[in-house]
Amino acid sequence: MIIVLKPEATEENVTHILEKTAALGLRANVSRGVARTIIGLIGPEDKLQVVPLEVFPGVEKVMPVLAPYKLVSREIRKEGSVITVKGDITIGGKKILVMAGPCAIEGYDMLLSIARKVKAAGCTALRAGAFKPRTSPYDFQGLGAEGLKMLAAVGQETGLATVTEVMDPRDVELVARHADVLQLGARNMQNFSLLKEVGKARKPVLLKRGISATIKEWLMSAEYVMANGNHDVILCERGIRTFETETRNTLDINAVAVVKLKSHLPVMVDPSHGTGRCALVGSVAKAGVAAGADGLIIEVHDNPEEAWSDGEQSLRPGQFEALMQELARVAQAVGREI
Amino acid sequence: MIIVLKPEATEENVTHILEKTAALGLRANVSRGVARTIIGLIGPEDKLQVVPLEVFPGVEKVMPVLAPYKLVSREIRKEGSVITVKGDITIGGKKILVMAGPCAIEGYDMLLSIARKVKAAGCTALRAGAFKPRTSPYDFQGLGAEGLKMLAAVGQETGLATVTEVMDPRDVELVARHADVLQLGARNMQNFSLLKEVGKARKPVLLKRGISATIKEWLMSAEYVMANGNHDVILCERGIRTFETETRNTLDINAVAVVKLKSHLPVMVDPSHGTGRCALVGSVAKAGVAAGADGLIIEVHDNPEEAWSDGEQSLRPGQFEALMQELARVAQAVGREI
Amino acid sequence: MIIVLKPEATEENVTHILEKTAALGLRANVSRGVARTIIGLIGPEDKLQVVPLEVFPGVEKVMPVLAPYKLVSREIRKEGSVITVKGDITIGGKKILVMAGPCAIEGYDMLLSIARKVKAAGCTALRAGAFKPRTSPYDFQGLGAEGLKMLAAVGQETGLATVTEVMDPRDVELVARHADVLQLGARNMQNFSLLKEVGKARKPVLLKRGISATIKEWLMSAEYVMANGNHDVILCERGIRTFETETRNTLDINAVAVVKLKSHLPVMVDPSHGTGRCALVGSVAKAGVAAGADGLIIEVHDNPEEAWSDGEQSLRPGQFEALMQELARVAQAVGREI
Amino acid sequence: MIIVLKPEATEENVTHILEKTAALGLRANVSRGVARTIIGLIGPEDKLQVVPLEVFPGVEKVMPVLAPYKLVSREIRKEGSVITVKGDITIGGKKILVMAGPCAIEGYDMLLSIARKVKAAGCTALRAGAFKPRTSPYDFQGLGAEGLKMLAAVGQETGLATVTEVMDPRDVELVARHADVLQLGARNMQNFSLLKEVGKARKPVLLKRGISATIKEWLMSAEYVMANGNHDVILCERGIRTFETETRNTLDINAVAVVKLKSHLPVMVDPSHGTGRCALVGSVAKAGVAAGADGLIIEVHDNPEEAWSDGEQSLRPGQFEALMQELARVAQAVGREI
Repeated sequence: MIIVLKPEATEENVTHILEKTAALGLRANVSRGVARTIIGLIGPEDKLQVVPLEVFPGVEKVMPVLAPYKLVSREIRKEGSVITVKGDITIGGKKILVMAGPCAIEGYDMLLSIARKVKAAGCTALRAGAFKPRTSPYDFQGLGAEGLKMLAAVGQETGLATVTEVMDPRDVELVARHADVLQLGARNMQNFSLLKEVGKARKPVLLKRGISATIKEWLMSAEYVMANGNHDVILCERGIRTFETETRNTLDINAVAVVKLKSHLPVMVDPSHGTGRCALVGSVAKAGVAAGADGLIIEVHDNPEEAWSDGEQSLRPGQFEALMQELARVAQAVGREI
Repeated sequence: MIIVLKPEATEENVTHILEKTAALGLRANVSRGVARTIIGLIGPEDKLQVVPLEVFPGVEKVMPVLAPYKLVSREIRKEGSVITVKGDITIGGKKILVMAGPCAIEGYDMLLSIARKVKAAGCTALRAGAFKPRTSPYDFQGLGAEGLKMLAAVGQETGLATVTEVMDPRDVELVARHADVLQLGARNMQNFSLLKEVGKARKPVLLKRGISATIKEWLMSAEYVMANGNHDVILCERGIRTFETETRNTLDINAVAVVKLKSHLPVMVDPSHGTGRCALVGSVAKAGVAAGADGLIIEVHDNPEEAWSDGEQSLRPGQFEALMQELARVAQAVGREI
Repeated sequence: MIIVLKPEATEENVTHILEKTAALGLRANVSRGVARTIIGLIGPEDKLQVVPLEVFPGVEKVMPVLAPYKLVSREIRKEGSVITVKGDITIGGKKILVMAGPCAIEGYDMLLSIARKVKAAGCTALRAGAFKPRTSPYDFQGLGAEGLKMLAAVGQETGLATVTEVMDPRDVELVARHADVLQLGARNMQNFSLLKEVGKARKPVLLKRGISATIKEWLMSAEYVMANGNHDVILCERGIRTFETETRNTLDINAVAVVKLKSHLPVMVDPSHGTGRCALVGSVAKAGVAAGADGLIIEVHDNPEEAWSDGEQSLRPGQFEALMQELARVAQAVGREI
Repeated sequence: MIIVLKPEATEENVTHILEKTAALGLRANVSRGVARTIIGLIGPEDKLQVVPLEVFPGVEKVMPVLAPYKLVSREIRKEGSVITVKGDITIGGKKILVMAGPCAIEGYDMLLSIARKVKAAGCTALRAGAFKPRTSPYDFQGLGAEGLKMLAAVGQETGLATVTEVMDPRDVELVARHADVLQLGARNMQNFSLLKEVGKARKPVLLKRGISATIKEWLMSAEYVMANGNHDVILCERGIRTFETETRNTLDINAVAVVKLKSHLPVMVDPSHGTGRCALVGSVAKAGVAAGADGLIIEVHDNPEEAWSDGEQSLRPGQFEALMQELARVAQAVGREI
């Protein structure tokens, strides 16, 4: 932690800060320049998180030096984590994991039909929503527990790993019983009650980045899950909110490489939500693989016109199959496989 | 709903859309221009929310005409709502409601001490957190149920209305038993499980705007609460996330007047979170009142240096008292009182 | 300047940095903590602006300590600057300066008519555009030199100070000959050729904040003008670009107080561009005065329906007159006058 | 153009709008729904750009239907434009054009040395700045005319096409005499005087997207250049400003595919400015190619530690050479070549 003092700070101010920080077990290093005096604090920076040094007399600003996360950091684990999703289906290794499926589960037959097609195209994981976070209280809210059973049945029938969203801490146990991966949506990235609950679950967690979350906050949310005992966290970049209105969100392609530098956790890209328009999904999916993503999550629907949710960003099975072939070539070009 | 067709759209495309929308009970009005054909749909627009018209063949874009909210809209209630917070303490009328207090409840004595001072300064509501949403799992998470009891006791002792945050749907009943107003924090503005639960509670809900929520989304979240039965919703602008880093958030002062145009609900301003720096709180609090806000929420702490949370944005009681006097003059200048 | 080293940085890396910085005349202070080694550099930080320390081996990040601006800083001038606009019309003192007028000069009679009305309402400065920056090449681009002559004539006729935009370095001399204040629009805040030219002019410069400029960048642009010899710079907050679409821009009310802390220069608020909708102008104008702005710039048009530019955000003279009376009350409430 | 009326709009309001728009030669189509009356206008929408329909009595909002640009639109030119940069060096065809070089020209020898290395790595265009837009007036501003001569000489010596920035309308002729491509920087995307001048030049224009420009505004700026007579416009996505601070900008990878849908002009990606950190450049460059970009612009410096500008985002020649080989594989995977 670095403390920059105001030009008019007094010796008394300095002494006051040094006493306070010494009491917390930190060593201080004072540099007196012409324009400013600066205090560098050496020792456990987290002790300072509850001390608002900004309001100490004479303080101009406080600059943290260390990242606030630990368990997610690549500093404590140099090699990337490989997470087992189900059986021999993993994410974080050479093979890129593609999760595909409809936004919402609309019925058993429809789900099975799509599942078979995405499997035929080379997918090993099926994603479909039973609990749907909807901006409007008047929109379709998902089939709930009934939908979960359909998902589990289709997973068993096809051998695909299953991925579905959990929105309420009271549902974590139920969802964990039926699905292989617990998805946390963008709106719940800082739902701390929910993060704690999935931290206690024994299934991998797919943690989507919040629509306006910094990468640091996103990693801190992963830290919540890990600090509660669940180390199987998969990150997913799904677009951030910017001023641009041509696309539903702005997919932050930089984030893929930043996360790889900072953390050992696998990171996916969601080109469906990241763009919001099916005509852009292919281009951005390929970009995600080229940038180094460990996985993709793509919406596929037999008949987007009739989809109960997010039809405008869903690919048809034929489009998805063609895309998978292109993705395989891009993956190979960067030393990966699909 | 307006549907703009692509230049290359065919008559078949038009017929297909007309059949589909007629089946939903909508009347259509087709305008054929040189550059584009446009279809205007007349009738209940909400029926179209589950139909992704964007993916119909020949469609270029879809433009909704009506706002998606109803109960919160000023169209269905011309005069502003006045909400009773406790006894004769209200918000939405001529008198501006100021809620003040520490970010977190740290103990009974500390809370009572601050409560007495803010009351002496002219406040009628005490705000203090028992459950704290914290970015880091290693930060202080609040005193929980123990804190709620302290808050209720201090409310009784001083006669102040009490306001506190609820973060988990499982805690709504407990919090509603102890506090007069249920605060929903910015991170939970789209926690739909929580919105539904507070919609069933019988206490007013203070709904903070999400850090990157549009005004429309914010009003839709209020609609969730109202649609679940609780019509006592108070909106609170607390700053949005932008590129600017000098302040913790950017308080959207425009939003005050926009909400007043669109909705009958009262709207508050939170200059403490909206700026994140105590040196800016006074300036922005006065701006909020001048802009037409119905209330303010301000952090006050006896000793910000020792605050367990958000000390850098807390006013000392003396600063708060001086500010209240300035605010009273500004309120009067715009035909209100404090 | 603080240099944070990577955990794996070697002694050789440290020596290399110390040699380089010593050669620039800086003293270094090395703190060796458990997690990181940190180097604090004491001395003229601006010497380091051309040395990319980030790429030195072993460096994790570089954190500047001092603000990069000098002449605009309140550190070198404690009291606020009062700038003479014309005769005894000033900005930065107790009296708040209101500039009003049409977006574009459309003709002499129209300009004179509006000028007389805003003067009658209590205004002392007339703002109107002769050169218009327009997003589309097909939109009206302003009357140019002809318009400048009309503006000068109306200024002389009414005694109002005149304010108009200059967009091209080749026009600075011409505009400075006809107008009292040179306005630099948001799009030109980092047009460095233009900043240098107006820096050589002998008329005050009204520098609007860029639509996505940080406060620091805005102050750096003011520094350009001052460093080129013109110390009469007036800052103007006119809204920044965010994700919100209900308003054309988001007026950053926090910026008023931030600028007052950082700089001695006067700061204005432009509620017309800051909101983009005439129904919101009054609310935000009052907020600007309450927040401590030294001036306002407001669009007024006799007949907004017929305005050639920005009609949707213009007040009619009657609305403006009523607003001026409200503003006078708010100004008085915060110890100012209009 | 669609006009949505307020619920309380009168027949008189409707008549007034119809008279006004009929006078402009537009046909109107009135739909009377239960909640709203809507007027669709058919005919040349650009006539309405100077009529602020928002302020007509009874109007709630106005929604444009057509894009405001024409010459840049893919609607008027279905196949993509291929632009000749110099001799047989083109952009927009199967071959991806990579421009590389130092941020600033620091001297002849240094420039020649880098030029030879990037050529050896497979580049056909050299980019280097003679006029540098710098945030601070105290930073190095470029070698100016002297630098241009060096660039021209190195271009002749190596056969590389040369690309350099022009910042001032007064310099367009000079720069066009020395360089093969005129670069317009992000800060000048809406410098309309400069756009008009390069529109008169006879060299291709590389138009960078503004840091907070929407795609529509970016295309409108290209329209300015084309409307002034220069049809050789190359677009370049170089990152937009968001709330994220880990990277200097957020490269908008979605924009590549959006531009390809909307316009026939070639589009490049600048991973150096788009990320601001050399460790991220390779990942994002590959993503750009995979997403369908027609070109890349990459900063390369022999010795980034000593670079006079932007050293932190420059690759060393060895890194660049390795990246070019990876890029060639990705290009091939998506049916292109480098």
